[in-house]
Amino acid sequence: MVTKTEYFNEPLHLESGRILNSFKLKYESYGKLNADKSNAVVVCHALTGSHHAAGRYENETKSGWWDAMIGSGKAIDTDEFFVICVNILSSPFGSTCPLDIDESSGSEYRLNFPVITITDVVNAQMKLFSRIGIKKAHAIVGGSLGGMQALCFAIEHPEFSDRVIMLASTYQTKAWAIAFNRIVIHGILNDVHFDGGNYDKNLVKIHGLVGMELGRMAGHISFLSPYSTEVKFGRNYVETDGLYELKGRFQVDRYMEYNASNFAKRFDPLCYLYIAKMMNIFDATRHYDDLKDALSNIKARLTLISFRGDMLFMPSEMEEIYSTMLDLGRKNMVEYFNIDSSYGHDAFLVEIDKFDFYVKRAIKWKRN
Amino acid sequence: MVTKTEYFNEPLHLESGRILNSFKLKYESYGKLNADKSNAVVVCHALTGSHHAAGRYENETKSGWWDAMIGSGKAIDTDEFFVICVNILSSPFGSTCPLDIDESSGSEYRLNFPVITITDVVNAQMKLFSRIGIKKAHAIVGGSLGGMQALCFAIEHPEFSDRVIMLASTYQTKAWAIAFNRIVIHGILNDVHFDGGNYDKNLVKIHGLVGMELGRMAGHISFLSPYSTEVKFGRNYVETDGLYELKGRFQVDRYMEYNASNFAKRFDPLCYLYIAKMMNIFDATRHYDDLKDALSNIKARLTLISFRGDMLFMPSEMEEIYSTMLDLGRKNMVEYFNIDSSYGHDAFLVEIDKFDFYVKRAIKWKRN
Repeated sequence: MVTKTEYFNEPLHLESGRILNSFKLKYESYGKLNADKSNAVVVCHALTGSHHAAGRYENETKSGWWDAMIGSGKAIDTDEFFVICVNILSSPFGSTCPLDIDESSGSEYRLNFPVITITDVVNAQMKLFSRIGIKKAHAIVGGSLGGMQALCFAIEHPEFSDRVIMLASTYQTKAWAIAFNRIVIHGILNDVHFDGGNYDKNLVKIHGLVGMELGRMAGHISFLSPYSTEVKFGRNYVETDGLYELKGRFQVDRYMEYNASNFAKRFDPLCYLYIAKMMNIFDATRHYDDLKDALSNIKARLTLISFRGDMLFMPSEMEEIYSTMLDLGRKNMVEYFNIDSSYGHDAFLVEIDKFDFYVKRAIKWKRN
Repeated sequence: MVTKTEYFNEPLHLESGRILNSFKLKYESYGKLNADKSNAVVVCHALTGSHHAAGRYENETKSGWWDAMIGSGKAIDTDEFFVICVNILSSPFGSTCPLDIDESSGSEYRLNFPVITITDVVNAQMKLFSRIGIKKAHAIVGGSLGGMQALCFAIEHPEFSDRVIMLASTYQTKAWAIAFNRIVIHGILNDVHFDGGNYDKNLVKIHGLVGMELGRMAGHISFLSPYSTEVKFGRNYVETDGLYELKGRFQVDRYMEYNASNFAKRFDPLCYLYIAKMMNIFDATRHYDDLKDALSNIKARLTLISFRGDMLFMPSEMEEIYSTMLDLGRKNMVEYFNIDSSYGHDAFLVEIDKFDFYVKRAIKWKRN
């Protein structure tokens, strides 16, 4: 496991028309890049994820978010591949984000940070790969917001990889997911401590914004499923709380509060705002006539994996990509699996054994 | 349409062991009570509803919440029946609630108000019916929290009605619904203007609590469905907002904000806390061995109506009531319809024409 930050003293022209005069990207890699630099597998992270996809630092109790997928002998095999995961622009974990210094003003961007799209995130990563010397990746894999990036690579950089694997994601964020995101956006913007984006970032790390906690609770619900919450918590009550006390809590209440409170301290609210925006305005069809037109650019073989209980990005959205690929006569260049999981959206992070073999096979795929 | 408030200068012994020394109930009625007072149909309202179930006051733009169901010639026919809907205890619309004066202290209850359960709500209503002279209701009908009341009448007051109709509800609130409610509870309790329950209630009517807005957004999502939001809003953007502006909004965002903001001004936060608590701790099996034991008390014919897309109370929960009634050998005393609707939980309020005939028929049912 190697963690690095790469600095780019060159402008990044954004989809919005705005320009980042310079930027940095933090990334992590596992395994060794081979001599002809042809064995890179790009892993794209989700909204609240980071470049730390696998392995464990000394001070950590938990491994990276996809540790069960990435490693020696695992589905994304580091004995064979050079696996790289780049922290996305706007994220608070080391790449350029709203808390960085805007060179033109000398002070932090804060609300002056430009809106970053999935296209921009992918373009920035392309510059990094180019600098490392990776002209073509062996495969690209991503779930949720990472799946959006994977699809964007496939459509907008069709020569970059022959294998693209997209999980628990969509080709355009639908009203339902936007509605969920509105809770956290409204919560952050209207939190009394947000202060128009000029909050004390160190204080926020200690206390967290209540608006962020509430939004995170809603996000949490969207990642789960009625079944998984029932199995995990049922109607168990917190032992020390009274059933007839107004503030008495069920165990699911305590879980929600605990997670939301930790998250609000761990994840910067401005960064969250920018990434939620990025997710909301993602639409792979925007610059094309329609989905068919957009997908017609793809040259890679596309592997689509959805999860039956996913409440955030419905399997039907992935199915639409599949059927459109079939309409385009790409029967041999697309495969679609709808995994039977009761874990909802989170399944791509927790029920690895239900789909890792599909990912492994898709990575091993060879053009005839 | 007649609106009245009835005052009870007698104690109400609550499930919690606490006592309300006196209480009042506001209610609305439609149609005429017949000579032997045998034609009453009791309608029970949901969490944010009120006794104003049908008809329209002079200053109103919208009719009562179930106007399409209640009226001359409608499913609940006011030519034939005396329809009565009672505002539940804890609700801010006229019955005793946390904003009322606690006689023992001379000041408002606020957080000293006792937790009220569905059992308490139903017991209070029984006192009202007794005072009016209704010994037996012709039928009881309710959706969501109103369905919980209907089931409670059936189990705990089995002689009170021969016909009980329950829609979009459950026999015990599950972890999933509790998780949704946690957002609004956490939001209210942690809102900087909540002030330990001592907020200025008039100011709240003008500004509303942000925590309440956020909770309401989550509630709103739980009432809807991915399909209905997609059909209604799609990815339409607010015309005056820029796509690449951080604060630019989709139309679904504007809708969520508009509704949440109105709601937070219209519904008192302390009352919401108490009713959310009431919903969370509802469990018709609490004082029984199990569901079968609880349902064995029922003497009424039970009509169960669920909605396929309901994300708050799953059809499977209603189905469990049905199958348990069958286990009890009550085949002739139970019927269950799972309505094909894409409107989610809200269907019981908006897709009347998909189920009103079942309600009509259930009300007309005659014991052989």
